[in-house]
Amino acid sequence: MEFNLTVDQINDLIEKNEWGILRNYLAEANPVDIALLLEELDNDKMLLVFRILPKDISADVFSYMEDTEQQAHVVESISNHEVRALIDDLFLDDTVDFLEEMPANVVTKVLRNTNETTRKLINQFLKYPDNSAGSLMTIEFIQFRLGWTVRRAMDHLRANATDSEMISTCFVVDERRHLQGIVELRQLILAEDDAIIDNIMEDTPLCVNTLDDQEYVASQTQKYDLTSVPVTDKEGRLVGIITIDDVVDVIEEENTEDFEKMAAMQPSEEEYLKTGVFSMAKNRIVWLLVLMLSATFTGRIIQHYNDLLQSAIVLAAYYPMLMNTGGNCGSQASTMVIRGMALGEIEWRDIFRVQWKELRVGFVCALVLSAVNFLRILIFEPAGATIAFVVSISLFATVILSKFIGCTMPLLAKKVRLDPALMASPLITTIVDACSLALYFFIATKLLAL
Amino acid sequence: MEFNLTVDQINDLIEKNEWGILRNYLAEANPVDIALLLEELDNDKMLLVFRILPKDISADVFSYMEDTEQQAHVVESISNHEVRALIDDLFLDDTVDFLEEMPANVVTKVLRNTNETTRKLINQFLKYPDNSAGSLMTIEFIQFRLGWTVRRAMDHLRANATDSEMISTCFVVDERRHLQGIVELRQLILAEDDAIIDNIMEDTPLCVNTLDDQEYVASQTQKYDLTSVPVTDKEGRLVGIITIDDVVDVIEEENTEDFEKMAAMQPSEEEYLKTGVFSMAKNRIVWLLVLMLSATFTGRIIQHYNDLLQSAIVLAAYYPMLMNTGGNCGSQASTMVIRGMALGEIEWRDIFRVQWKELRVGFVCALVLSAVNFLRILIFEPAGATIAFVVSISLFATVILSKFIGCTMPLLAKKVRLDPALMASPLITTIVDACSLALYFFIATKLLAL
Repeated sequence: MEFNLTVDQINDLIEKNEWGILRNYLAEANPVDIALLLEELDNDKMLLVFRILPKDISADVFSYMEDTEQQAHVVESISNHEVRALIDDLFLDDTVDFLEEMPANVVTKVLRNTNETTRKLINQFLKYPDNSAGSLMTIEFIQFRLGWTVRRAMDHLRANATDSEMISTCFVVDERRHLQGIVELRQLILAEDDAIIDNIMEDTPLCVNTLDDQEYVASQTQKYDLTSVPVTDKEGRLVGIITIDDVVDVIEEENTEDFEKMAAMQPSEEEYLKTGVFSMAKNRIVWLLVLMLSATFTGRIIQHYNDLLQSAIVLAAYYPMLMNTGGNCGSQASTMVIRGMALGEIEWRDIFRVQWKELRVGFVCALVLSAVNFLRILIFEPAGATIAFVVSISLFATVILSKFIGCTMPLLAKKVRLDPALMASPLITTIVDACSLALYFFIATKLLAL
Repeated sequence: MEFNLTVDQINDLIEKNEWGILRNYLAEANPVDIALLLEELDNDKMLLVFRILPKDISADVFSYMEDTEQQAHVVESISNHEVRALIDDLFLDDTVDFLEEMPANVVTKVLRNTNETTRKLINQFLKYPDNSAGSLMTIEFIQFRLGWTVRRAMDHLRANATDSEMISTCFVVDERRHLQGIVELRQLILAEDDAIIDNIMEDTPLCVNTLDDQEYVASQTQKYDLTSVPVTDKEGRLVGIITIDDVVDVIEEENTEDFEKMAAMQPSEEEYLKTGVFSMAKNRIVWLLVLMLSATFTGRIIQHYNDLLQSAIVLAAYYPMLMNTGGNCGSQASTMVIRGMALGEIEWRDIFRVQWKELRVGFVCALVLSAVNFLRILIFEPAGATIAFVVSISLFATVILSKFIGCTMPLLAKKVRLDPALMASPLITTIVDACSLALYFFIATKLLAL
């Protein structure tokens, strides 16, 4: 089932010149596993193994290789003839994906070895904006013309099935290539040979535009449980389709982006272990600086109350507890709201429902937390009842306020067209810190003056 | 393209008894959109609309309804005969999904109106553990026997296509129902009528076990770009398949779980706006309590240095900046590592590579942050060079330490079989807070004593 040759065994087979055994293994293995294995080999051996791959899977393996330096090395090392065969077997969208990552000499070598039609298509694809439907789509799909019979459609399908990335959904266009409908292979198989496509197709299918954002494509696919979406250009002509496996990758990419933004980092598409130290530091430092400078504002509040603090130094011991709890309450609320918006469950018009819910949840949490805290200080610490009271009342207010700020900020961000994910824990924490300490000092001044 | 009747218009049509117009609209609309619309109607009108839905889409609409109370209301209100027709049209996995959420009287009404075979199957499905492959699979798929010709297979396929959730991949079993191979519909269409299935199928296909976790199913599907995975029982018999649209839902569910855990909440499968205040508070309060009590440990450290603080009260103003920056650095590192592990890019054996990388990234960030901080205090604050130096050196150490703790904890958690997502910002922040303040006081004591 799984590909079970280790790297050591591969190296061993190569050194012993056991090409026959190696080739048999490779013919049985899954292209994904072979690609993962190639990554572990040094460049020379990788190339040797790549060249003995059965012809029908070598393009597949190539498209699954994630190490772009290895891909470049392959293209640089193989003959022009082999490049032509490779590009011929690759789906166009995979070719474009890999060309985007290649150095100029490799791109040139590839383009020089493709025919003019493909070259034009590649250049057109490279012009679609990053993360647009156009950059994601494939052009290898099955399309029928209005008026065809099922027999003619099936003949067309048989003739083109090998070159198409998916055949279970086919698309129907008119003479100007405008999308008119979709027809499932299931329906074709069940229909009479003489039936006309127009009568069995589903008209007004959902479609997206080449310039639509990939996030929109993903949300539509999920909402309607589709396995492919047709893509049209601005004249309404069918130019490609996006298949579900690429949508799954988009979903994971968008989620990773949200995770990174919510931890105050600029998103990056590189894998962790493959990202350089400086580019990683660069993605992190901007937010760290902004948040560090914002936190000095909280410091100013503390400085303002130096006299109070001097006369009741015990107050300082409760900063971390107050700030942390506030931060946690705020990020719980903001995470729920950010995620709810990402999944389309919460919208701007729900703001009052969300706030009302968070106020009540905050009230329950605040009650429990401040009661526990009051008893803990009273029983385990020498600070006394007044301090316990001051701290617990501040905690109570902090929890409710944090929940409120935490749920409101992401919705406001969305309203002013910022990414809600930016309003996550780090920023919320910094804002909540300042509020909770200001509350704390205000309450302490009032109550300790008695 | 989109379903464009508003709730008000629907209400209006119902009040005017315009059933014909309404019915025409519904026949054209997408079941997903109809289900969303039903949610906005009151129960009586919802039921009226549901009952005039064209027969071929009512089961579809029902399975897309997300409000379980509405589903219960439908089943309670329709006749036994209608229940029978509904369950007949639903795919078994959708029936089971909805029964899991229903009150006892609805479950009884449904089971009383299904034939014995279906009833047995439903009961068997309800026994699979939550989040297992068994609970996710569908039993409506196409299977062939070893030895069949392509002609026989295609006849079988035509006869069963309507009742199958997907037909683009078919499965081949032997006489004991053991999975022997898979065959793509594409290959069937291209093959000769007399060809034997055994020769065109792909043998040793990837499959999962009924008891495998859904997370494993999702990762295999993504890794190998599959659109369906066969599921076998512990004797190796083919019992179901899992289709990509359900895998997409699993991916989103697992991501939501990670987001929630990483913000110190117990994960919940309910939609935000549909979750009650108390169950929401319950999901949040446990971690809030744990973290609040842990933060008092940091408070103890501050108390321990009360004398130092009393003689240099200005030190207190830098707590928030130090604690926040430490927390942010830690959660950046932990988020990257948690996400990397979730996507299979980072494993336990990478721990030293990860730590070495974070140490270097930490060094770069620490250098920039502490330099900016030193200059800021020197220029804008009256604290003086010694305090600026103490704060900046502490910041430097805090950043490096936080990055190190942040990247190490999730990996350690995985090693001891805890969920890495628990080691996210909130917990890391609490740990880092204590460390950064301890460092700060230690350095202050040394340097201010000079």
